[in-house]
Amino acid sequence: MDILDTIITRRSIRAYNNQIPEDSQIENILDAGRWAPSGLNNQPWRFMVIKDKTRKDGLARFSEYGGIIESAPMVLLVFMDKNTSYNRDKDLMAIGASIQNMLLYAHSQGLAACWLGEILNKKVEVSKFLKLSSNLELAAVVAYGYCDEGVKEGKRKMLKDLLIK
Amino acid sequence: MDILDTIITRRSIRAYNNQIPEDSQIENILDAGRWAPSGLNNQPWRFMVIKDKTRKDGLARFSEYGGIIESAPMVLLVFMDKNTSYNRDKDLMAIGASIQNMLLYAHSQGLAACWLGEILNKKVEVSKFLKLSSNLELAAVVAYGYCDEGVKEGKRKMLKDLLIK
Repeated sequence: MDILDTIITRRSIRAYNNQIPEDSQIENILDAGRWAPSGLNNQPWRFMVIKDKTRKDGLARFSEYGGIIESAPMVLLVFMDKNTSYNRDKDLMAIGASIQNMLLYAHSQGLAACWLGEILNKKVEVSKFLKLSSNLELAAVVAYGYCDEGVKEGKRKMLKDLLIK
Repeated sequence: MDILDTIITRRSIRAYNNQIPEDSQIENILDAGRWAPSGLNNQPWRFMVIKDKTRKDGLARFSEYGGIIESAPMVLLVFMDKNTSYNRDKDLMAIGASIQNMLLYAHSQGLAACWLGEILNKKVEVSKFLKLSSNLELAAVVAYGYCDEGVKEGKRKMLKDLLIK
């Protein structure tokens, strides 16, 4: 698939069947994430993969969209390592680049995913639940699996409405 | 090119020859950028393309790495529209995803690019120079062109050093 097609046809998918992504696919997803660019090449991202149902259902309690986490056979938690961070704005953009790499790779492989942000409202509670060290700040949860819903049309603003003269 | 190859072989390129990217390529770069995901699909990114040498050289004055901006036949300024923003952290990550889309598309087309962050130290001065409206906050400058330097090896942390158990 052409990369522009991959970019344009990627969608947030919120319901998954029971098929579990293979370990080799998960490793490639994480490889895509770790090869993102970052300021001073500081690589502020850290990753946690959760497939265990009990742990996943526990995590789901912290989101209004917990059903997506419960449905997904695998979720990826992306953290900012505050010990590595040198500029919060730039590090957040770098983490966004890392997440996008992982979404694009997954989509190119026929995997579905959903980038979940609302759970950040409970990021302190999630850290306690997972007994994380204090340098790790939750930046995103990404659900992965195989699509079990109709894929909707994507909508974006027209380019002319985004361009500054 | 396989998307994982595109991700892994992309490099920051800091010197360019005189060949100017075609308008159709620039439009595709911006299309890649506008199709990024964002929280609530708010699409907080705004873009400005500068090819004019006088304006580009003026911009270069605000960066210690102005030589990269002077060398590039085209620079893209990426802004956060503060009127559209709903959550600074999430919007910065979305803008990072948008920038990464544009870097990956460019690389897949044989175009070189460099994501410049240090110029954000002078973002207020850049806004004044460009007479921007107050809702636009500079998030990044990305230089584009055709590579005119040796491409170095990329370096990243090992996956085992990024994974949280």
